[in-house]
Amino acid sequence: MIVRDLGEFGLIQRLADRIARDERQRNARLVLGIGDDAAAWRADGDIELLTTDTMVQDVHFRAGVGTWRDLGWKAMAVNVSDIAAMGGAPRYAVVTLGLPARTPVSAIDELYEGMLEMADRYPVVIVGGDIVAAPVFFVTVAVTGAASQPEGRPVRLLTRSAAAVGDVVAVTGYVGSSAGGMRLLHGGVPARAASSPDSVAYLTRAHLRPEPRVAEGQALLQCGVRAAIDVSDGLVGDLRHICEMSRVAARMRTDLVPVHPALGQLLGDEALSLALSGGEDYELLFTAPSYVVERARRTLSCPVTVIGDIVEGAAGMVTLLDADGTVAAINRPGWDHFRP
Amino acid sequence: MIVRDLGEFGLIQRLADRIARDERQRNARLVLGIGDDAAAWRADGDIELLTTDTMVQDVHFRAGVGTWRDLGWKAMAVNVSDIAAMGGAPRYAVVTLGLPARTPVSAIDELYEGMLEMADRYPVVIVGGDIVAAPVFFVTVAVTGAASQPEGRPVRLLTRSAAAVGDVVAVTGYVGSSAGGMRLLHGGVPARAASSPDSVAYLTRAHLRPEPRVAEGQALLQCGVRAAIDVSDGLVGDLRHICEMSRVAARMRTDLVPVHPALGQLLGDEALSLALSGGEDYELLFTAPSYVVERARRTLSCPVTVIGDIVEGAAGMVTLLDADGTVAAINRPGWDHFRP
Repeated sequence: MIVRDLGEFGLIQRLADRIARDERQRNARLVLGIGDDAAAWRADGDIELLTTDTMVQDVHFRAGVGTWRDLGWKAMAVNVSDIAAMGGAPRYAVVTLGLPARTPVSAIDELYEGMLEMADRYPVVIVGGDIVAAPVFFVTVAVTGAASQPEGRPVRLLTRSAAAVGDVVAVTGYVGSSAGGMRLLHGGVPARAASSPDSVAYLTRAHLRPEPRVAEGQALLQCGVRAAIDVSDGLVGDLRHICEMSRVAARMRTDLVPVHPALGQLLGDEALSLALSGGEDYELLFTAPSYVVERARRTLSCPVTVIGDIVEGAAGMVTLLDADGTVAAINRPGWDHFRP
Repeated sequence: MIVRDLGEFGLIQRLADRIARDERQRNARLVLGIGDDAAAWRADGDIELLTTDTMVQDVHFRAGVGTWRDLGWKAMAVNVSDIAAMGGAPRYAVVTLGLPARTPVSAIDELYEGMLEMADRYPVVIVGGDIVAAPVFFVTVAVTGAASQPEGRPVRLLTRSAAAVGDVVAVTGYVGSSAGGMRLLHGGVPARAASSPDSVAYLTRAHLRPEPRVAEGQALLQCGVRAAIDVSDGLVGDLRHICEMSRVAARMRTDLVPVHPALGQLLGDEALSLALSGGEDYELLFTAPSYVVERARRTLSCPVTVIGDIVEGAAGMVTLLDADGTVAAINRPGWDHFRP
């Protein structure tokens, strides 16, 4: 059996199972190990968080699509987003660069400018890393975070495993914009894009410079939300992750999925499919009782849209419904880098 | 200018300088950023540590030299060693795998067995990571650690910047064994090796399964040592790192450098050169006043050998002396993966 047969999620599950069997890998302070957006453990009353994400050239990005500065921004942003999806505040980062010896130093300078531009917003402090020779460029960032806890109360975090039957499903902002931007950047620009520079700029920025929902994640936690994930694999795939971890099923009304006007305008026919399975939006997808979601909608300064609900059913099953309630599709797979 | 022109250390310095200029990258809780074996910051009285290290196929290891299990052990061990070199205890790890799609799943299983075998000794708990498609195999591990602090006292850590004129320089265990083992594994086995299987086993194990000096690092801290580094780039190169960061110079007596009998026996002619610049020994190289080193020698259960002293001089200059005190060499460069 090779890695492609098992796929990314199959391999992660296999390794998680192996670690779970190991007695010495258990730890009374550990709150969340493998399987959520970030790991979490208790440390003197607070919760500490740790996550890592990698971008490999020609797998996660192509040279010439976006700048090195964009790449630096995104490499940091996707990690910050994992901390946001736990309701935490990002703190410290280590950065590993795998570099062909012929990489221009100016490219690395620009990469760091983008990384710092993103990091400085929170601020995340870059405290170290590793630089290694490699035949292909890659960048791995690991970010720590913290989620302060009310004294003497149960742990308060956003996790993938806290969805409950009866919750409604909601999402921040718009989905599909990043995938739409990628489509434009890779050459699929429709003729009508020429007359809509603002729409092109919005979509390409969504792909190259995603904004992690850090303040929103913390606000969701304050509002009483406990189940969330960031939309990295795609809306349906990420809802499936929540449902798998929470041992529930979900129904999603495809007509309610929030699509930015720019996406509809430039890629109308594909807008819904990009919104459902495009990924890399880094919006927060969350579930909670409807009154909690209503509170969140009033508190957050970004759009919050209800798109479905959590129901009993096979763990991980996501049913897509049309506007009239008929079943449109079930359980479309998310993105797997190991499969064509 | 390309990365090869600047080299690994030049590039690290350039990026560290850039970050140091950034006001928002300053943080009152940060104790050590880029430039030591691990980053360190204050967290409720204790010090937290974070480090990361990467191994890339055909750069840091070759397929078929050692097993996947050895590789997993080493990928974890080199990170644990960084925490040891701060005097800390390793705690949590995230593991990133870059995998060609045709990688056998059994290889990853074996890699994890080796990683867990090493991690379980402390225990380090593997709490997450990332799995990505890549054209070349690589493994990046990030490990957190903690160094408990005496209340109300200055921070107590092993750092590269604490060496002082008048200190003696000492090292744990033996150096050069790992480089000797690599030489044997890559085919340079002398005829006399056939009659010395124990020596071959010792040297190859030193290369494939290095033992981080975790207990020793903590003991050195208890004994009053404050300046240390783990020997990863090579004895002379790592002493130079200490001297650069401490703005001092050092003299090293090459005849005092501790070489294991197996290295002398099998690679006699090269033993000293491997010991001085071989690297990957993961012994602790440290400096302290002689009475502190004497205390350490009595406390540690491994050999502790005095090999030189810290003197005034150009920051980073390391002078190698023969047994009779004549200058043998100055400042031989360490290992740089970007240069041939």
